[in-house]
Amino acid sequence: MSSSYGKNLKITLFGESHGAGIGCVLDGFPAGFRPDLAALAAFMARRAPGATPGSTARREADTPEILSGLFDGRTTGSPIAALIRNGDHHSADYADLAAIPRPGHADYALAVKTGGANDVRGGGHSSGRLTAGLCFAGALALQYLASKGVAIRSRVVAIGGREVTDETDAAGLDAAARETIEAARRDGDSVGGIVECVVTGLPAGYGEPIFDGVENRFAAIVFGIPAVKGVEFGSGFAGAALRGSENNDSFRYDDGGAVRTETNNHGGILGGITSGMPVVFRAAIKPTPSISKTQRSVNLRTGENCDLAIRGRHDACIVPRARPVVEAAAAIAALDLLLDSPPTAMAPDQQVSVF
Amino acid sequence: MSSSYGKNLKITLFGESHGAGIGCVLDGFPAGFRPDLAALAAFMARRAPGATPGSTARREADTPEILSGLFDGRTTGSPIAALIRNGDHHSADYADLAAIPRPGHADYALAVKTGGANDVRGGGHSSGRLTAGLCFAGALALQYLASKGVAIRSRVVAIGGREVTDETDAAGLDAAARETIEAARRDGDSVGGIVECVVTGLPAGYGEPIFDGVENRFAAIVFGIPAVKGVEFGSGFAGAALRGSENNDSFRYDDGGAVRTETNNHGGILGGITSGMPVVFRAAIKPTPSISKTQRSVNLRTGENCDLAIRGRHDACIVPRARPVVEAAAAIAALDLLLDSPPTAMAPDQQVSVF
Amino acid sequence: MSSSYGKNLKITLFGESHGAGIGCVLDGFPAGFRPDLAALAAFMARRAPGATPGSTARREADTPEILSGLFDGRTTGSPIAALIRNGDHHSADYADLAAIPRPGHADYALAVKTGGANDVRGGGHSSGRLTAGLCFAGALALQYLASKGVAIRSRVVAIGGREVTDETDAAGLDAAARETIEAARRDGDSVGGIVECVVTGLPAGYGEPIFDGVENRFAAIVFGIPAVKGVEFGSGFAGAALRGSENNDSFRYDDGGAVRTETNNHGGILGGITSGMPVVFRAAIKPTPSISKTQRSVNLRTGENCDLAIRGRHDACIVPRARPVVEAAAAIAALDLLLDSPPTAMAPDQQVSVF
Amino acid sequence: MSSSYGKNLKITLFGESHGAGIGCVLDGFPAGFRPDLAALAAFMARRAPGATPGSTARREADTPEILSGLFDGRTTGSPIAALIRNGDHHSADYADLAAIPRPGHADYALAVKTGGANDVRGGGHSSGRLTAGLCFAGALALQYLASKGVAIRSRVVAIGGREVTDETDAAGLDAAARETIEAARRDGDSVGGIVECVVTGLPAGYGEPIFDGVENRFAAIVFGIPAVKGVEFGSGFAGAALRGSENNDSFRYDDGGAVRTETNNHGGILGGITSGMPVVFRAAIKPTPSISKTQRSVNLRTGENCDLAIRGRHDACIVPRARPVVEAAAAIAALDLLLDSPPTAMAPDQQVSVF
Repeated sequence: MSSSYGKNLKITLFGESHGAGIGCVLDGFPAGFRPDLAALAAFMARRAPGATPGSTARREADTPEILSGLFDGRTTGSPIAALIRNGDHHSADYADLAAIPRPGHADYALAVKTGGANDVRGGGHSSGRLTAGLCFAGALALQYLASKGVAIRSRVVAIGGREVTDETDAAGLDAAARETIEAARRDGDSVGGIVECVVTGLPAGYGEPIFDGVENRFAAIVFGIPAVKGVEFGSGFAGAALRGSENNDSFRYDDGGAVRTETNNHGGILGGITSGMPVVFRAAIKPTPSISKTQRSVNLRTGENCDLAIRGRHDACIVPRARPVVEAAAAIAALDLLLDSPPTAMAPDQQVSVF
Repeated sequence: MSSSYGKNLKITLFGESHGAGIGCVLDGFPAGFRPDLAALAAFMARRAPGATPGSTARREADTPEILSGLFDGRTTGSPIAALIRNGDHHSADYADLAAIPRPGHADYALAVKTGGANDVRGGGHSSGRLTAGLCFAGALALQYLASKGVAIRSRVVAIGGREVTDETDAAGLDAAARETIEAARRDGDSVGGIVECVVTGLPAGYGEPIFDGVENRFAAIVFGIPAVKGVEFGSGFAGAALRGSENNDSFRYDDGGAVRTETNNHGGILGGITSGMPVVFRAAIKPTPSISKTQRSVNLRTGENCDLAIRGRHDACIVPRARPVVEAAAAIAALDLLLDSPPTAMAPDQQVSVF
Repeated sequence: MSSSYGKNLKITLFGESHGAGIGCVLDGFPAGFRPDLAALAAFMARRAPGATPGSTARREADTPEILSGLFDGRTTGSPIAALIRNGDHHSADYADLAAIPRPGHADYALAVKTGGANDVRGGGHSSGRLTAGLCFAGALALQYLASKGVAIRSRVVAIGGREVTDETDAAGLDAAARETIEAARRDGDSVGGIVECVVTGLPAGYGEPIFDGVENRFAAIVFGIPAVKGVEFGSGFAGAALRGSENNDSFRYDDGGAVRTETNNHGGILGGITSGMPVVFRAAIKPTPSISKTQRSVNLRTGENCDLAIRGRHDACIVPRARPVVEAAAAIAALDLLLDSPPTAMAPDQQVSVF
Repeated sequence: MSSSYGKNLKITLFGESHGAGIGCVLDGFPAGFRPDLAALAAFMARRAPGATPGSTARREADTPEILSGLFDGRTTGSPIAALIRNGDHHSADYADLAAIPRPGHADYALAVKTGGANDVRGGGHSSGRLTAGLCFAGALALQYLASKGVAIRSRVVAIGGREVTDETDAAGLDAAARETIEAARRDGDSVGGIVECVVTGLPAGYGEPIFDGVENRFAAIVFGIPAVKGVEFGSGFAGAALRGSENNDSFRYDDGGAVRTETNNHGGILGGITSGMPVVFRAAIKPTPSISKTQRSVNLRTGENCDLAIRGRHDACIVPRARPVVEAAAAIAALDLLLDSPPTAMAPDQQVSVF
């Protein structure tokens, strides 16, 4: 099985880039919630191609039809299915892909896996287009979380190896990042980057030790976003260069008597469990492998090495479009987490305690 | 549920640092395999305290008693349960921990989660000692994988922010790394580091798109290792700084007619699916939070800020001991993956193909 | 989560009786299989209303649109999503259902579960109409199983407490059963019955002891069929009245040297594992609760007891229509089972063995 | 994987009849609960051999050692592991079993499954002895449920095809049942029976439609009890013989204003969801296949048909001992269910409602 995630809130994605459409089923969403469908559409528009610098000009309506799970404007508790029809096909662009796998894409691995039965048009089920279904589901989760005081935001922290110090446009870029992307586009190339995501408002005491920890559960969905090749929490890889006395976060009571840490190198997660501090993680997003430059590959039909020039329109940088996808993934993970059994109330025989 | 992982091969860890013992149940291991118990013990000894520079002097026998799943020296296909008794307790060292959570540890988060019912002695179920059970299970998986041509090795690539360029001792360190660790110990402090792990011999075509990909499944177990705060595959975070033309790995036929990539920035995984190249990942391991230096914390009973000096013996660096744990986690993930349905054979109506 | 089943082959149902439509996502289906879509439609027609004695006159096109997972007529290994649009609505018939729960239906339980947010029209997500998605998925599984030598057939063994001794029509009924159903219809009432299902061709050695046995896995999906209130395997409840010497099935070699049992009271399953004999189970299907007779219920808005007369068209007996649904459920369970790791080959140090 | 069950509360069984011991790991049990260990032992004693008419004379201490998950007498929220050592071995009794499978036992199916590597002594992992671990876990769940107002009780409703009308001994039998069992014992034979189990106090609104319903979840664990070959809820198979007007349960307000049904043919479950009425199910327990009478089998080493006389002591009837096992299974299913997200509170825009 490829395309399901979640314990209490389960998301299943389906569809192919150039098939009838793509979509999702979201099972376990709380009943009785009245989603704001206009806000949902606005969220999805952030992922849509053409909306951000460096993105492809492919036009997608990306308007989901909600097939189930809503009644009189409220969620029913039954699975919420949504379908986004495909429209703007250029399958001819991809005619040779069955024979010549694109470097950096899933083509070769999928061909081996499926005995050559995979849908090779536009990456098929492995296309980034599938993330539209993730954004649909994530937008619902974000709205529900907001009603519970949980907020999720992200920012681009690096493009092409350069730190993004300032957010001067709607895509979260600064002038240098935009220029880095444009330079790659001029060269028929692409650049990657890093997205940071922060979840505030999660209460302390959620998650489990060892294999069902918050890091495990967030990583398991964030690595489901195509192009993500690294995930770190809190100080992450940089923290591995610190001493314990630098990386440990001191506990202190705040003015309201709540326990806080003075720093947040732990990224809101200690021993797999939320500490009540913001959950912070970063995702490394590789440069999109679809580039115009001629590349080296193999022809699986002739058994010979060959060159490959990929035609068509490509994003020079998918990082800005990945931001809502990362937020959506975080939202689903966070809501799945909150639907676990809540922390245990203090037992009556614990007379003295302030937590 | 906290402590289970896997789809076909399921591992469950149990136990506490200062309870009766710790152990694991490994369910789904193939029947009819004859493990080498001496090699298993040697593997587990690599994780044992005292075996590597910077590790604690706590003596653990760490000899697992195999309770089930072996008959006449062969695995039966039934769950393999192993128990490692605890012995060398110094619970008095930890008497105040119920009130004063240690910075960087799970104490506070667990206390909130459990309403104060958690076993506070030595970190309880969140102790690194639990990884002995993971090593037991991983050692079995490693041996089985070896019989199928799959090998797993790891190395320490950084200690305290310094690259480890040479492996001059059994712990995988060079002189500079040993000195970095010793300096931390002299200061009553600790240092972190990075472990790289390579899995060779995995056939192409395993794993699934999106949420059940190889990255997702490896990350979901590797983040189960205490102190791991980041996981990256292939070029990972560094790859996010490259251009597509640099990060894409060209396909070429090798002399034997097999498809290979010229580089391995994809870390053996494309679109969540193995490519047949080695699976490569790195885990960021934070400096162990147990340090002798006085730290700032809160007293949950009095509701006041306080200082905390942790007595007892501590590892100055757990990175060398984490190496077998990372290998064990990778072995369980790899074997779980190989127990999936194998790739589809080429359909008979695909006349021309070389893969 | 309500609506997912399976370990290797996962089915998710979505939709409501009177919403936009109903459908399913089938994830994990083997790649490269070329389904016979005409045979699939014929299978689904067996479940469609109006096809069998006692069924409602509601017209449903029941023609699934396959949204994903097929390419050039073959399965791709990606999720197969199908959508069946709803058409023939009579929601006005159900206007009072939000206030007055129908006896024997899920209305009351769902209203409590969802805080009153459930889709009350026609049973919403709990409608028997959802089984059309199950039949779609099951038909694919049946065709695939047939290509592997596994066949599934069912028969009606009882209607309204009378044994069906002979199958004289396409619905699997005899004259007495048809008359039993007609009598119920004339009375504005309904009758239940029992369906037996037989799976032949499953090799020995599949399934697991204890909680993941073949009985567990079949029961877990068969109880997902609305109206099923009992499931038994082999001699089942009648076997509980036998002595061990009567109920035990002797092993014998057949002429081809294969191990068989002389009887099949074990229903093809011993210790949760297939024996190589046909898997046989029976499902008890309660009389459909939708009847025209006036019933006693409560008015949840007024808080008073009341009478309820359900208008609209109802099946007097759903048992014949349930046959393909039972077969579909069995097919999904059987294929999920076959996608497990296969039995272990005999180890080389077992010199003498014939199995 | 064979031996795990549960979503929120996960039980894993391990061990073999004649290995080092048997046991269980219970993961997800609520923290802060103080079990009554004497009551736990008393519950387990009901399952122990020798305690009931017709049971084997094999002596088992059956005293579980709790390895983890308890601290200062309270559950910690971490996995609770328990080990019951084996003692009273007579492996010589079972020496030929590797070659000659016992009719009605898992021997043959397991041998095929494992390539002959299964532990053949006493049924190995498939032995009924494994249910001691289930009883341990179930006893904890029962105590916790009791603290929440949920009670579980069972009774023997039939032995050897005769209804048990009266409960005149601690095993739940009447004189006729005891005589039926004794007659079977005298003949070197065995008899089966039916156990009914009732769960009271479960609130309405738990469970899910379709595949994750209460029937599905209960059946999935109850079929994990060796010898159970049928499970029915409410009126079950008998209900399939009724008309809808007879089988439907009318809703009525009780004196306290709560919604109740006048009868309980639905067994407390409507559409997979609890109705607030008692959950009622029956399990068909086949006659234990271990009998002294000579039986017909095959010799897998010689490839010839043969006779088999099983030596050793056997239960003539395991039904009374199965009662606590059924209760334990029900308790685990019920607690797993209660640890799901609770029913949704009524939304504020639903002004008029009484439920």
